[in-house]
Amino acid sequence: MDFSSFLTSLATSFIIYVILMLLFAWLSGKPGNSVVYYPNRILKGMDPGSKTRNPFTWISEAFASTEKDILDLSGVDTAVYFVFIATALGILTLAGLVLLPILLPVAATDHGKNDKTTSNGTFSDLDKLSMGNIREKSPRLWAFVFGVYWVSFVTYYLLWKAYNHVSELRAAALMSPEAKAKAEQFAILVRDIPTPPEGQTMKEHVDSYFKAIYPDTFYRSMVVTDNKKVNKVWTELEGYRKKLAHAEAVYAESKEKGNVEGVRPMNRTGFLGLIGAKVDTIDYCNEKINELIPKLEAEQKVTLKEKQLASALVFFSSRETAASAGQNLHSRMVDTWTVVNAPEPRQLIWTNLPKKFYQRQMRQYVVYMIVFLTIVFYMIPIGLVSAFTTLANLKKLLPFIKPVVNQDAIRTVLEAYLPQLALIIFLALLPKFLLFLSKAEGIPSESHAVRAASGKYFYFSVLNVFIGVTLGGTLFSTLKTIQKSTDSIIPLLASSLPGNATFFLTFVALRFFVGYGLQLSRIVPFIIYHLKRKYVCKTEAELKEAWTPGDLNYGTRFPGDMLILTIVFCYSVIAPIIIPFGMIYFGLGWLVLRNQALNVLVPSYESNGQMWPHIHTRIVAALLLFQVTMFGYFGVNKFYYTPIIIPLPICSLIFAFVCSKKFYRFFHDTALEVAMEELKEVPNMEVVFKSYIPPCLGGDKSNSNDEQPEDATSQVSRIGTNV
Amino acid sequence: MDFSSFLTSLATSFIIYVILMLLFAWLSGKPGNSVVYYPNRILKGMDPGSKTRNPFTWISEAFASTEKDILDLSGVDTAVYFVFIATALGILTLAGLVLLPILLPVAATDHGKNDKTTSNGTFSDLDKLSMGNIREKSPRLWAFVFGVYWVSFVTYYLLWKAYNHVSELRAAALMSPEAKAKAEQFAILVRDIPTPPEGQTMKEHVDSYFKAIYPDTFYRSMVVTDNKKVNKVWTELEGYRKKLAHAEAVYAESKEKGNVEGVRPMNRTGFLGLIGAKVDTIDYCNEKINELIPKLEAEQKVTLKEKQLASALVFFSSRETAASAGQNLHSRMVDTWTVVNAPEPRQLIWTNLPKKFYQRQMRQYVVYMIVFLTIVFYMIPIGLVSAFTTLANLKKLLPFIKPVVNQDAIRTVLEAYLPQLALIIFLALLPKFLLFLSKAEGIPSESHAVRAASGKYFYFSVLNVFIGVTLGGTLFSTLKTIQKSTDSIIPLLASSLPGNATFFLTFVALRFFVGYGLQLSRIVPFIIYHLKRKYVCKTEAELKEAWTPGDLNYGTRFPGDMLILTIVFCYSVIAPIIIPFGMIYFGLGWLVLRNQALNVLVPSYESNGQMWPHIHTRIVAALLLFQVTMFGYFGVNKFYYTPIIIPLPICSLIFAFVCSKKFYRFFHDTALEVAMEELKEVPNMEVVFKSYIPPCLGGDKSNSNDEQPEDATSQVSRIGTNV
Repeated sequence: MDFSSFLTSLATSFIIYVILMLLFAWLSGKPGNSVVYYPNRILKGMDPGSKTRNPFTWISEAFASTEKDILDLSGVDTAVYFVFIATALGILTLAGLVLLPILLPVAATDHGKNDKTTSNGTFSDLDKLSMGNIREKSPRLWAFVFGVYWVSFVTYYLLWKAYNHVSELRAAALMSPEAKAKAEQFAILVRDIPTPPEGQTMKEHVDSYFKAIYPDTFYRSMVVTDNKKVNKVWTELEGYRKKLAHAEAVYAESKEKGNVEGVRPMNRTGFLGLIGAKVDTIDYCNEKINELIPKLEAEQKVTLKEKQLASALVFFSSRETAASAGQNLHSRMVDTWTVVNAPEPRQLIWTNLPKKFYQRQMRQYVVYMIVFLTIVFYMIPIGLVSAFTTLANLKKLLPFIKPVVNQDAIRTVLEAYLPQLALIIFLALLPKFLLFLSKAEGIPSESHAVRAASGKYFYFSVLNVFIGVTLGGTLFSTLKTIQKSTDSIIPLLASSLPGNATFFLTFVALRFFVGYGLQLSRIVPFIIYHLKRKYVCKTEAELKEAWTPGDLNYGTRFPGDMLILTIVFCYSVIAPIIIPFGMIYFGLGWLVLRNQALNVLVPSYESNGQMWPHIHTRIVAALLLFQVTMFGYFGVNKFYYTPIIIPLPICSLIFAFVCSKKFYRFFHDTALEVAMEELKEVPNMEVVFKSYIPPCLGGDKSNSNDEQPEDATSQVSRIGTNV
Repeated sequence: MDFSSFLTSLATSFIIYVILMLLFAWLSGKPGNSVVYYPNRILKGMDPGSKTRNPFTWISEAFASTEKDILDLSGVDTAVYFVFIATALGILTLAGLVLLPILLPVAATDHGKNDKTTSNGTFSDLDKLSMGNIREKSPRLWAFVFGVYWVSFVTYYLLWKAYNHVSELRAAALMSPEAKAKAEQFAILVRDIPTPPEGQTMKEHVDSYFKAIYPDTFYRSMVVTDNKKVNKVWTELEGYRKKLAHAEAVYAESKEKGNVEGVRPMNRTGFLGLIGAKVDTIDYCNEKINELIPKLEAEQKVTLKEKQLASALVFFSSRETAASAGQNLHSRMVDTWTVVNAPEPRQLIWTNLPKKFYQRQMRQYVVYMIVFLTIVFYMIPIGLVSAFTTLANLKKLLPFIKPVVNQDAIRTVLEAYLPQLALIIFLALLPKFLLFLSKAEGIPSESHAVRAASGKYFYFSVLNVFIGVTLGGTLFSTLKTIQKSTDSIIPLLASSLPGNATFFLTFVALRFFVGYGLQLSRIVPFIIYHLKRKYVCKTEAELKEAWTPGDLNYGTRFPGDMLILTIVFCYSVIAPIIIPFGMIYFGLGWLVLRNQALNVLVPSYESNGQMWPHIHTRIVAALLLFQVTMFGYFGVNKFYYTPIIIPLPICSLIFAFVCSKKFYRFFHDTALEVAMEELKEVPNMEVVFKSYIPPCLGGDKSNSNDEQPEDATSQVSRIGTNV
C-alpha cells in the first residue's frame, strides 16, 4: 500500500465519520427519536434531554459527566470499562509524548536500509519515520531501547493504579448500604448436591444440611428444577397473550379508522399462519389462553414437586454469612456441595446449574480443544485471504476484474479497504460461536460466560489477525524463508512487522472512524425502529421492545479494543507514528461510549467489575508480546546490546504475578471486611427470595411484581413448605 | 554382580536381621530396659508390658492391634502412615499373586537375547526370569502388557480406597467432640497484617479488625512478638536451672557415698568450663538464676509491649467460626490479612510467622532453585561413584587393594555391598539440609516443613538414585550412546533397567533386613541410654531426656519407602521376582513399625493426616514413571503394539486429577460439616489461649502448667489488656 492510498483511506473514513456525526446531531435533536437516542434515560425515568441542543452538546455533556454519573446510570461494569479506556489512553498519551519527539527525528535523519522496507514492494513515506529506516547495528537503536523501557514502565504504573481503582469501585459497590437491588449478596449457589437419603426430598436435604451449619442466618433454599416443560407451556402462553394484545390493538385501530364495527383480525392456525383453518384471532387466543393457564399451573406444581435437580440457591439473612458461605468448604468430599457466590437472578443460566462437577470439567476441556482447533485452523484461511487480496494478486487471479480495478479511484479505494474489510467481516462471525461454546462449558452466569468468550476471542484475534496478517502479508515472499527455518517465528514476525505498519494504521483508522461513527449515529437501530413502528408494532409493549437498547456487549468490545491496543503496543516503538492513531481510537471511543453509556445502552447484567482481572492480564500479555517482538526485532537489526531487553519480559511476569496475588481473589470472592458493612435497612428476604423465581414458575414478570403478589407468594410458600 | 554374590548379600542381611531380632527379644524382656523398648507406653502412663513374654510376643501383639489402638497411642499421622504401608503391601501382593505365576514361566521358557542381559558383563541366573529373556517382537510380550495394566488398575483401586479411608480418619479426628487437646481448632493464624493506623498498637489493630467481622465468636488475639532476646535470656535461665538440679543431685550422691558433708561440685566459669575462676556450682547457679529472673521478666514486658510483629493468632470461641475464618478472604487486598488454620502450638515455627507475603514467595523460588541445582549437580558425583565402585573398576584404580579383594569371601561381600553402602551413606547426608531449606521458605508449621522437605527428598532420591544409578551403572558402557542421542532418555533408561535389577534387589533386601533390624532392636538408643545413665544423668529429668524416644521421622521415612516402591513398581513387570522382596520390605516394615508405634515412638506433632495427599501424589507419580518406562522398554523390544500402553499414563493423570478435585481441599481447609459437630463441653478458652504462649514468655513449660497458673494468667492478661 503506498502513501496516497493510505491518505485516501484515512480521508474517506474521516468523511464517513463526519457525515455520521452530523446525522446524529440532526436526528437526535428531533423529539420523536428520543427513544432511539436516549433510551437509557427514559428507562431510568429521567428527562430524555429534549431541551434544545446544538449538535455538539453531547460532547460537552460527555466531558462533564463524572464516574459517579456512570455508576448511577450504567453500573460498575461500565465504569470499569471506562477505567480500561482511560488507562489505554493514558498509556498511549504518555508513550506518545515522549516517543514521538525522540524517535521520529532519530529515525527520519538516518538513511538506512530502504531496500529492506521495500521488500514488500510497498515503499511508503511513512516507513521513513519508522525503525526500518535505521541502519543495522546503529547506536541510534539505543533510543528505541529506551522507548521500549518507557512504554513498559508507563504501562506498569498506570495498570497498577487502575487495578487499585477498580478494586475500590468493586468494594464500594459491594459494601453499599442499599440492600434492595442486590439480592445476590444474600444468596449462594450450591451445586453437586449428593442424592438425598431415602425418604427425603432434595429440598429437605438442602434445608437440613444448611440449617445445621448456619442455624442463625439460614433463611431458605430454592432447589433448581427441570423447567424445560413448564417453560415451554409458559412461552406458548406468553406468545398467545402478546398475539391477543396485538390483535386487540389492530381491531381497535380498524374501528377508529372508519368501520364502526371494525375488522376482527383473522389468522390461520397452521404452519406460520399460512395454512390451516382460518379463525378469529381474538377468540382463538382467548380460548388458547384459558386452555393453557390450568395446564401451566398443573405443570408448575409437578415441576416444583417432582423435578428437583441436584442444585440449589441458598439464602441467608446476612450479607456476611452469604459472602463467607460462598468461599467455605462445606463437605469433606470436595466435589459435592460445591458453592459459589450467587450471580444476579437475571444472569443465571438455569440449564447449566444442575450440571455435575466432572461433566463441567470435561466440557471445559472439550471446549478448550475446539477453541484451540478453531484458532489453529482458521489461521490458514485468514493468512491466505490476506495474501490473495492484495490487488496485484487479485488481478492475476481474477483477470476479469482488471478493467474495473484499473480505474484510478476504484483501485485506490479497493487497495485501501479490501484486506481490512475481509478481516472485519471475518471477525464478526465468531463471537456468537465462542459465547455458545463458553455457555456449553457449564458456566452458571451470563457475565462469566461473556468473560470466558471474550478471553477466547482475544486469543483468537491476537493470534490470527495480528500474527496471521503479519505473516500472511509476507506469506508468499517469505514462504521459502519459512521452509528453511520454521522454528524461528519471532525473528520472522519481527522482521515482517515494519512492512505491515501501514496496513495496521489503516485498520485502526477504519475501526475508529467508521466503527464509532456508526455507533454514535445508531443508524441501524434508528431505521429498524422506525420501520417497526410503522409496520409492525401496535401495542405499547411491542413498541418498547422495538426501541429497547442493547448492552455494551463486552464480549466483543473488549477483545476488539485489546486487538487495537496490542497492535499499537507492538508498533509503538517500531513505527511511533501509530501512537496518535491509537490515541484517537481510545479518545474517540471514550467520548462516543460516554454518550452511549449515559444515554443509550442498558447493561444486561452487573458483575461488579469482575471483568477487570481479565482485562488486566490481557494488557500485560499484549505488553509481553510487544517486549518479545522487540527483542526479536533488535536481534534482526543485529544490535549488539539486544539482551538488554531481557529484563523487561521478566518484569512483566513479576508484575502480573504480584497483581494477581494482591488483587485477584477479591474479584472472585467477597472480602469479609467489605461484606460486613452495615445495611441501611433490614432486607426484605421475601423479596430477595422471590427475585430468583424464574418467570415460568410464577416469578415476577417484567411488570407484574405488584399486580399479583398473591400468586407469587403462594408459589413461594409452595416451594418453601410443600416441596 | 553374579548370582552367588547376590545370595551372599541376601544371606548376610538375613543373618544380621536374625541376630538383631534375637537381641531385641532378649533385651526387651529385661525390666530395666523398658524405658528403651516401651517409652511410648510409659509416657502415656500405661503398663510397659513387664509381664513375662516369649521372644515373639511383640509379633502377635502387633498383629492384634487395631487401627484404633494406633489412633489412641500414636495419633492420626501414624495411622495414615500405616494406611500407606498397607496400601503399598496390598498393591504388591495383588500384583505378585497374578504376575508371578504368569510372567515367570513366560520369561523362563523363552531363550531370547542373553547377549543383551550380559551387556553389563553381569550375567545372572535371575535374568532368566526377567523380561530381558524374551525375544524381540515376541508375542509373549502381550503377557507383560497385561502385567502393566494389572499393576496400574490394582494401584488405582487401592489408592482410591485408601484416600477415602484417610479422609474419614481426618474427618473423625477433626469432628471429635473432645475439645481439650485441640487448641488449634479454635484458632487461626493471621499474617501480613498491615501497619496499624497512627496511635494504635498492633494488638488493638488486630482486635478491632476481627471483633468487627466476628462480633459474636471472637475471643482474643495474640500478636506474635520478636522473641529473640527474651528467648536468649530464658534459655540461659533454663540452662542454669538444669545445671543446678544436676549439681544438687551430684552433691546428694556424694553425701550418700560416704563423705557425710559431701563434696560440693565445682566448675570454672569460662569457656566450656575449662578456663576461668573456679566456683561452687550450686551457689553460682543460684546466684545466676536470681540475677536472670528479674531480667527475664523485664524483657518479657518489653517484648510484649514493644516488639509486636505483623502476625497474630486469633482465637474464636467456636470451632466452626475458626474453620470458616481460616478459609475466608478478609481483606480487599489479598496480600494483607492472609489467614490459615492455626497449626498446633508445639509445631509453630515462630520465627517464620512474621515473614511477609512476597518475601515468602521469593524465598520459595530461591529454595526451589537451590534444590533444583542440588538435584542436578549431585547427579554427576553419584553417577560417577556407582560407576567407579564396581570392584573391577576399583581394582584398576586402586591397585593396592588388590591383595585384599582377591580373597574370595571379602570380594563377594564387597561386591555385594559396596555400591549400596555408598548409596545409603550418601542419602543419609541430605534430609537435614532439605528440612533447613524448607523452613527457610517461611512455612509456619513444623509438619508442613517436613512435608515440603519430604517432597524434595522424594524427587531427589528418585531422580538421583534410581535414574542416576541405572544410567550410572551403565555409564561407561553407554557413554557413546548418550553422546549420539542425548534426547532419548526413556529408551536409554528402559534398556538399562534389566541389567540393574539385581542391584536393586540387593538394595531392597539390605534396606529391609538391616534397616528394620536396627530399628526393632534399638541398639543405638539402647547403648546411648545406658552410657548416659551410667556416666552423665543424675536427675530424673535428665534421665527422662535420655530415654525419650524420637518420632517416626516422616521426613526421611516416606521418601525412603517411596524410593523402594518406585523401584519395585518399575521392575514389577520387567523382573517380577522383585515383587516378593517389595512385599517383605513393606510387610516387615508394617510389623516392626507397628511395634515401634505402639511401644516406642512418640509423634512430635499431629497434622491430622495432611501428609496423605502428598503420599498419594507421589505414588501416582511413581506409577507414571513405571508406565512411561514400560512404554520405552516395549519400544526397545520392538514390540509392534507398544502404543497400547499410551492410555495408561493418561488414566494416571485423570486419576490424579479426580482425586485431587475430590479429596484434596479437605486436607487443606476444614469442611464446615465436619467442624460443626457439637462439642462435649464448652472449651475453656483460657487454656486454649495459654497453650499458644511460647515458653520464653511464660507459657506452660513441659510440666509447669499446674504449678504456676498465676504466672501464666498474669502474662495472659498482660497480653490481653495492657498491650
